[in-house]
Amino acid sequence: MTKGKVYLIGAGPGDPGLLTLKGADLLSKADVIVYDRLVSPETIRLASPSAQLVFMGKEPEAPGVFQEEINKALVEAAEAGKMVVRLKGGDPFVFGRGSEELLALKDKGILFEVVPGITSAIAAPAYAGVPVTHRGIAAGFTVVTGSEDPEKLNTELDWPALAKNPGTLVVLMGWRSLPSIVRSLIANGKSPKTPVTAIQWGTLPRQKTVTGTLETIIERGTAACISSPVVTVIGKTAEMHGALRWFDTSPLFGKNVLVPRSRNQAGILSSLLREHGANAIELPLIEVLP
Amino acid sequence: MTKGKVYLIGAGPGDPGLLTLKGADLLSKADVIVYDRLVSPETIRLASPSAQLVFMGKEPEAPGVFQEEINKALVEAAEAGKMVVRLKGGDPFVFGRGSEELLALKDKGILFEVVPGITSAIAAPAYAGVPVTHRGIAAGFTVVTGSEDPEKLNTELDWPALAKNPGTLVVLMGWRSLPSIVRSLIANGKSPKTPVTAIQWGTLPRQKTVTGTLETIIERGTAACISSPVVTVIGKTAEMHGALRWFDTSPLFGKNVLVPRSRNQAGILSSLLREHGANAIELPLIEVLP
Repeated sequence: MTKGKVYLIGAGPGDPGLLTLKGADLLSKADVIVYDRLVSPETIRLASPSAQLVFMGKEPEAPGVFQEEINKALVEAAEAGKMVVRLKGGDPFVFGRGSEELLALKDKGILFEVVPGITSAIAAPAYAGVPVTHRGIAAGFTVVTGSEDPEKLNTELDWPALAKNPGTLVVLMGWRSLPSIVRSLIANGKSPKTPVTAIQWGTLPRQKTVTGTLETIIERGTAACISSPVVTVIGKTAEMHGALRWFDTSPLFGKNVLVPRSRNQAGILSSLLREHGANAIELPLIEVLP
Repeated sequence: MTKGKVYLIGAGPGDPGLLTLKGADLLSKADVIVYDRLVSPETIRLASPSAQLVFMGKEPEAPGVFQEEINKALVEAAEAGKMVVRLKGGDPFVFGRGSEELLALKDKGILFEVVPGITSAIAAPAYAGVPVTHRGIAAGFTVVTGSEDPEKLNTELDWPALAKNPGTLVVLMGWRSLPSIVRSLIANGKSPKTPVTAIQWGTLPRQKTVTGTLETIIERGTAACISSPVVTVIGKTAEMHGALRWFDTSPLFGKNVLVPRSRNQAGILSSLLREHGANAIELPLIEVLP
């Protein structure tokens, strides 16, 4: 039997329209789809009706051994000759452990391809009107995860260097450790007045944005009941939210809209509603026979 | 007359399959498309046949005043009630001056939306088998442009801080200033043995990859005739190219393949060829009448 192939695909940050054309095409052809916790149902719906869907979502606090199960599932499906899509939220190489999975495949001689995805590190700020770079304001940006708590002994990051860096700092998945990150940046010389914007559920109709400074963001975010998943932007461009916000200013933004149509018919209307930031809830019609 | 709207769309790093679904949909509906130098012809072909195509490509060394012309073109089209797509290579907020254009629109009261694109900062390395993060190896990454020459007096970046940062450093558009960047990083304490991978024309059939270290990359890149556009990855993950390369190992990679079909018929075959890294050259059939 010919061995199958694994396509490691990034599904993007949440908005199903941010999947790539190549990702959508491969998804519609795959025999097996192994997908993560943060992939949207609209994206999964692009799969062929005959595809085998395997949910392997890791909760943020799950033990690390689970990764081996995912690797095993990918290897087994490919060795059975299947076309396998491994679908991850965001980009598979931005804290997605994508490269760990590829090393496991390589080890077994299984062919693979990578289809990058839009990372929430750039897109969640963009949907909040915050550019990660801006000429004369931020000539570069750094992306880290909040799982690297700077007050833990084993942090792999150099927080004094991060504090000195004049570019934008983007913290992914880090609301819980943000107090520690904020203390560490200020202790290492970053101005407490540095603008900060925190975006929860970025690119989705439930997107919520809180602005402040290093000094105020924890209090403000807590008051606004911000919780995971959050992308936090620290740096001068963060305050551009005020001038450039667009997604959450649409009159339909965040509204729940019932779409009483069958699955096949609802698509266009639902995606139009989603484009305007509404939350389209599809309610299939019931046919009443005489 | 109702004012139009401007959609600021990232076209991705080069592979036309890396455009987003939302970007492709808006592109097919737009009245006016203002596009950049690095947008691929296959992407432009998604436009409606009736759309007005406006090329406003800025050469890397062009004077800055040109930006005002672009802003003016966008404002005028939107004020004439048009649906305008502003299409940029990569992501519009990653050194794309996207936010400058939005400020100009905002100033005139013109509505806009942002559709992020896949940035070459992450995707070009991914197509070379290089992840920007990897657990235990790189817990973060920093993206800067090579136009920030560290040996110029007015650099906005803190090179000592960049040299200390243990994460991956990605330099966009910087082959010409790379010698200066390399000297600066080594002078500020970065190990000369730090792995480096430089990728020219990332994600395209003419992708070319050169590996080395901070000490050797300039000599090796020069020997391999590397020139713009280049993405350079500096850090431990750069050496994973050896284990994880996939795009340039396909038997069709980099081959020129003639597709003797009309434009409408050639699409599927061409995109299949491109998926395997071949350079599909479409040659329309000539109908010979009796």
